[in-house]
Amino acid sequence: MIRVGVVGATGYTGAELLRLLAGHPQACIEVVTSRTESGRRVADVYPNLRGRLDLAYSDVEPRSLARCEVVFFATPNGTAMQHAPALLGAGVRVIDLAADFRLRDAAQWAHWYGMAHACPQLLAEAVYGLPELHREAIRGARLVANPGCYPTAVALGLLPLVEAGVLAPGPLIADAKSGVSGAGRTARQSLLYAEVTDSFKAYNVFAHRHHPEIVQTLAGVASDPPQLVFVPHLVPMLRGIHATLYARVRDDAADLQALYAERFACEPFVQVLEPGAHPETREVRASNDCRIAVHRQGPQVVVLAVIDNLVKGAAGQAVQNMNLMFGLAETSGLAAPGALP
Amino acid sequence: MIRVGVVGATGYTGAELLRLLAGHPQACIEVVTSRTESGRRVADVYPNLRGRLDLAYSDVEPRSLARCEVVFFATPNGTAMQHAPALLGAGVRVIDLAADFRLRDAAQWAHWYGMAHACPQLLAEAVYGLPELHREAIRGARLVANPGCYPTAVALGLLPLVEAGVLAPGPLIADAKSGVSGAGRTARQSLLYAEVTDSFKAYNVFAHRHHPEIVQTLAGVASDPPQLVFVPHLVPMLRGIHATLYARVRDDAADLQALYAERFACEPFVQVLEPGAHPETREVRASNDCRIAVHRQGPQVVVLAVIDNLVKGAAGQAVQNMNLMFGLAETSGLAAPGALP
Amino acid sequence: MIRVGVVGATGYTGAELLRLLAGHPQACIEVVTSRTESGRRVADVYPNLRGRLDLAYSDVEPRSLARCEVVFFATPNGTAMQHAPALLGAGVRVIDLAADFRLRDAAQWAHWYGMAHACPQLLAEAVYGLPELHREAIRGARLVANPGCYPTAVALGLLPLVEAGVLAPGPLIADAKSGVSGAGRTARQSLLYAEVTDSFKAYNVFAHRHHPEIVQTLAGVASDPPQLVFVPHLVPMLRGIHATLYARVRDDAADLQALYAERFACEPFVQVLEPGAHPETREVRASNDCRIAVHRQGPQVVVLAVIDNLVKGAAGQAVQNMNLMFGLAETSGLAAPGALP
Amino acid sequence: MIRVGVVGATGYTGAELLRLLAGHPQACIEVVTSRTESGRRVADVYPNLRGRLDLAYSDVEPRSLARCEVVFFATPNGTAMQHAPALLGAGVRVIDLAADFRLRDAAQWAHWYGMAHACPQLLAEAVYGLPELHREAIRGARLVANPGCYPTAVALGLLPLVEAGVLAPGPLIADAKSGVSGAGRTARQSLLYAEVTDSFKAYNVFAHRHHPEIVQTLAGVASDPPQLVFVPHLVPMLRGIHATLYARVRDDAADLQALYAERFACEPFVQVLEPGAHPETREVRASNDCRIAVHRQGPQVVVLAVIDNLVKGAAGQAVQNMNLMFGLAETSGLAAPGALP
Repeated sequence: MIRVGVVGATGYTGAELLRLLAGHPQACIEVVTSRTESGRRVADVYPNLRGRLDLAYSDVEPRSLARCEVVFFATPNGTAMQHAPALLGAGVRVIDLAADFRLRDAAQWAHWYGMAHACPQLLAEAVYGLPELHREAIRGARLVANPGCYPTAVALGLLPLVEAGVLAPGPLIADAKSGVSGAGRTARQSLLYAEVTDSFKAYNVFAHRHHPEIVQTLAGVASDPPQLVFVPHLVPMLRGIHATLYARVRDDAADLQALYAERFACEPFVQVLEPGAHPETREVRASNDCRIAVHRQGPQVVVLAVIDNLVKGAAGQAVQNMNLMFGLAETSGLAAPGALP
Repeated sequence: MIRVGVVGATGYTGAELLRLLAGHPQACIEVVTSRTESGRRVADVYPNLRGRLDLAYSDVEPRSLARCEVVFFATPNGTAMQHAPALLGAGVRVIDLAADFRLRDAAQWAHWYGMAHACPQLLAEAVYGLPELHREAIRGARLVANPGCYPTAVALGLLPLVEAGVLAPGPLIADAKSGVSGAGRTARQSLLYAEVTDSFKAYNVFAHRHHPEIVQTLAGVASDPPQLVFVPHLVPMLRGIHATLYARVRDDAADLQALYAERFACEPFVQVLEPGAHPETREVRASNDCRIAVHRQGPQVVVLAVIDNLVKGAAGQAVQNMNLMFGLAETSGLAAPGALP
Repeated sequence: MIRVGVVGATGYTGAELLRLLAGHPQACIEVVTSRTESGRRVADVYPNLRGRLDLAYSDVEPRSLARCEVVFFATPNGTAMQHAPALLGAGVRVIDLAADFRLRDAAQWAHWYGMAHACPQLLAEAVYGLPELHREAIRGARLVANPGCYPTAVALGLLPLVEAGVLAPGPLIADAKSGVSGAGRTARQSLLYAEVTDSFKAYNVFAHRHHPEIVQTLAGVASDPPQLVFVPHLVPMLRGIHATLYARVRDDAADLQALYAERFACEPFVQVLEPGAHPETREVRASNDCRIAVHRQGPQVVVLAVIDNLVKGAAGQAVQNMNLMFGLAETSGLAAPGALP
Repeated sequence: MIRVGVVGATGYTGAELLRLLAGHPQACIEVVTSRTESGRRVADVYPNLRGRLDLAYSDVEPRSLARCEVVFFATPNGTAMQHAPALLGAGVRVIDLAADFRLRDAAQWAHWYGMAHACPQLLAEAVYGLPELHREAIRGARLVANPGCYPTAVALGLLPLVEAGVLAPGPLIADAKSGVSGAGRTARQSLLYAEVTDSFKAYNVFAHRHHPEIVQTLAGVASDPPQLVFVPHLVPMLRGIHATLYARVRDDAADLQALYAERFACEPFVQVLEPGAHPETREVRASNDCRIAVHRQGPQVVVLAVIDNLVKGAAGQAVQNMNLMFGLAETSGLAAPGALP
């Protein structure tokens, strides 16, 4: 059993990680920390875990964490980078679900996240944990930067086009929609039920932190750096991201359905749907799946991609990365079907 | 035009009051105050009012308020009682949408609201603003205590039985359900969308402040003080209260359908539905109506009553009281049908 | 008082029309027809109208309709075209909320709607009822084709750019999201609460009937026919459309914020928001407003436009058209603020 | 591996059964039937099962079913009773998730379900599958009547009081609230998203089929037949039942918290919460748990009980019964924590 620590497990991402790890056949949760809930039983904060996880939150203690084989950080941005060097030094592997190690450029990171990076020397070593792109590197990684929720859906939906080099000039457009759990559990007026329900809005047009992350991923596989327009929206639902992706391909671009099917043929968590399909976010609710449909009309392509923001967009992908890092079956602990209805 | 002031108009109750008053043909909003939003335009905080209310929030200034003919308090409990004596002294009428003047007993008020009452001498004068019970007193009142949302629905549903003296011994049971707007707009984790949606719960069993308020109302018309069990619940919806009321009547109790129909025959805002009906909260969404259905099986009675918690349960009833106090048509400004779907 | 008939008033669009007309100071509803509910009281089908509309549904009787001054059709596609010629012949004006008279080309109409047009000779006369574009023609019209919900939001959001001729070559992209009431009230499994709630999906990619309607509107003001990609989505909410519109402008395009502000400066129902704004659909819930925000980064433009699909996207716009046709104040019966929360 | 057949697996109850059985370590789904979807792949109808269940729906063929060891009926009422005698004769065990075998009295069944019973001779043999009450009988049963959703929540909440004989005279009141999935997947106007969301209502006051079922269960353990008032309500949420139960106990009734704790101490799926607790339905979302809180004030008792209507209220309890019938661990296939948020 792999000894696991989870730092910052009071947010939704951390709680989802505990839900998945509690049912993982080869992982054992040793330490769960929280600044705000230290001393409380986890099951009192997340009652769905009652009878499944008999632990209390503790303060962050480096010695306890150092006894783990892997530590997940489900903390606000800027926390994991404070602890990662020491843990890595102690031989502990680190998976950060926040953004601390996602951008390779420390100056760019500082610009978008509003603080200097605490350990820029680790940025080159950190592996961006998108298994569909960096599987081999993840297997050998000490430090994994778990991708953001939007970047996972957008990158998976666009990678085949970018990698194949079939795009015509012009911007890629990612119109993305997320359920409210993506905004976290901190009490904010704008996230109250009575503010969010029965309404729909865009936010952070041209100004979302996931923009540089997506661009970095796509640029890594493109001959020319892609131009991306990214607009996120808030949907009155709990879980789910739906990315509607607009691109134009060259006239000689071959069969895109086949392109996508082949690209993801061996992926355990990505399913390319039949032509004409329209995936719904509820299909992947509480599961680690990503479902993709490809629509084309002449040069115009519309790709639809759905994930559960808390699973493939966060905690599930983190477990997938752990499985790879420790040589386990990639689907271990992640096989349960989604809950529908 | 009646010159109106609204103190504390940043919560949902205050915003609903502004929505109704903005369309009221005989009222003119002169002053709108807010501690937290002073200086901001009302329409920036409540964009539905853009183009309908060209005012900015100001600080509470007694002199501005004293120039009004009536001042509504849509403030937290304990605020109106600080200002009411001076305003009444200046000849301004006061309608408090909070609880400061609802209980006639100052000691009981202090017990339930956790502070001493600032002007207990006014409790005897304050009129409990349930027009269906105290219409004449409201017409002549200087100070009106606008009823709570649950107490409005529960009292209207039970009054005919209590007044008629047909109840058998035993407790009255009020199982009440409210939409989330009833909990206000303050940022609290427990009211986040992701905490509330797709779930249902009871709260404050045996411990809700509306219990003594309902008992006081029913006791006022009963020969014996009624025994009441009151359990509130939170429904994942924006607006609406549904009260399911359980009572037992004496064997000789006459036709209850007729009893209810007669009791409310002249009421502009209470409709007794046909036998067998099950009202839905959405029927009265954004309207001042209360709909009641009466079910009986032998001695057992089940009464269903629905209101919009922000309208008949708060702001609409306050406007209805203002209309009575100033000799206007009781339905003035309150005639618009609800929005369905 | 204008004598009004409403054909097909059992769907949501028709019900919303009745809600608005019931409160209209210069309209009197004379006839309300329904195939399925003939004989039932309107308020039994739409209980929000109880006490506001004392009428029963009748069968469609040409003689009753001919006594009206204007007849609204809130019927399925293909119905209004059966009745319009006779009504017009009898001197009755017609406003069709369905699609029968929206496309000027009968062959194109037949292609998209799957039936031959019953009165193609009227297509040239029919005025497309978007007041912001055809106000003068509407004033003199006998027959108005009320625009579709998506076309209203998308056209209002794009018109200033197209009219000004500032667009760079390339497609316009309209990523549109609608609440569920837009899908109508017919019992279909895919529209059940348990199928729709807590989920999000696109539908009809490249295949929605509103595509040719939008293109026709934009082409009417463009020097070159615009290329449009339109993808609609279903949002788990009752009302509201949010259009996210992507366009690229020429390098020399002037201040777009000013362009939009000037274009709609005199429009009673279109508000251009301050730079950086993100309108929410709830701001315009149950109101006839359209709110627009313009974002730009170099040549890339993102326009956000919100309406209530049942009001500005259907019944409210129909009343606005009626007001114009009969020389009333354009805002008559449409001034109430939206309900928020 | 136990060979399993599921008849009628296109409704929500059947789909939930497939979700649970697909992950059950000792069950193998051999046959899945559907009248309406015969020939379609299960994963095309329930896409959450894609990659987890590689089967197509077939017509009901007695020979295929007879090769199973157990057949579940997730069919409308009146279907299982047509097939049960032959299957039992072939040595197949039967678990009916509909109501065919829930009432022991054939005349009462015919009265409530509107048809004559097809095999009344089996009613005496059928075991009512509430493990917390009939565990030993279920272990030996050939035919199990899986309880209704409301009856499960209400019975578990009231059993300790009734069994202990501590009730004072007077009616028990069960005010129960259910998510919409309990109403099934058949297209009905009243269940459309736009009819149900953002609203709340009671239905079937004094007239719900679960009333006699609950009474039968309680009467089975009571010295005097209990008197029950049962009012169900529809909540705008997907899953979950919340029962608010009102009872009065004799003055000498001992510690109720201890009574409940002891009664369910060995139950794997019933948790009695700490004094003062208010369980939420989301705690048990997608899990087989039932959570109960007991509140008392003098003689008045309020019990709160929550379940997931599709799991402990239907498919999960059916799997629990299968586990008992086949000597498996009772929690096999049912251990996953609920999904929260």
